Amino acid sequence: MIDLKFSKNTDGLLPAIVQEYETGEILMLAYINKVSWEMTLKTGKAHYWSRSRGKLWLKGESSGHVQIIRDILVDCDEDTVVFKVEQLGGAACHTGYRTCFYRHVKGGDLQVSGEKIFDPKLVYGKK
Amino acid sequence: MIDLKFSKNTDGLLPAIVQEYETGEILMLAYINKVSWEMTLKTGKAHYWSRSRGKLWLKGESSGHVQIIRDILVDCDEDTVVFKVEQLGGAACHTGYRTCFYRHVKGGDLQVSGEKIFDPKLVYGKK
Repeated sequence: MIDLKFSKNTDGLLPAIVQEYETGEILMLAYINKVSWEMTLKTGKAHYWSRSRGKLWLKGESSGHVQIIRDILVDCDEDTVVFKVEQLGGAACHTGYRTCFYRHVKGGDLQVSGEKIFDPKLVYGKK
Repeated sequence: MIDLKFSKNTDGLLPAIVQEYETGEILMLAYINKVSWEMTLKTGKAHYWSRSRGKLWLKGESSGHVQIIRDILVDCDEDTVVFKVEQLGGAACHTGYRTCFYRHVKGGDLQVSGEKIFDPKLVYGKK
């Protein structure tokens, strides 16, 4: 198993950048701990540590929008990774946008530039 | 000035993903605090907070390899940004590779897949 520097941060978490493997679009950033890293390598599906829920998180466990791992890059310091993925369902963000980065800075404000793929109410069954 | 959720993390730092604006290649991940965010917006050059040196860091201040901001994306939670940049000098990593993510996982090990652009000894003047 490839070791990463999980001990570098006091919470044992490292950032994982998630990139669509064909287009290069950055979909999201999430955090991994040792268990989620090992589960990702073992299963070929992206697993994270949910900081808000304090638990192991198989991305797509609620929505079905699983991320299939196509490649994994590791940085020079071994404290950040890139997951190159195939995003099932076409959208990574819980808001329904293809990417969590659906807004960009323009004229001192944030402007929506992304594309909405699904309605969160229908996928997650809440308002 | 656009507000980000710097208070979300106890150290007041948020991750900034750095992406080459033309190719979509992910070059590095660094951290920003409020001051480096404001300096980036004001100057159009990527500024970070160096966790190892504990100081504001204009990327390229030693190497000359400044990152010119071409676009900035902000995520749904306002706790992560993408800097789309033009990387002067052609390489972002202090090791001399174009990207810090110059290795990928292959067969349970790390394999170099990136391209070395410069010799760190010549650029930084140290062994």
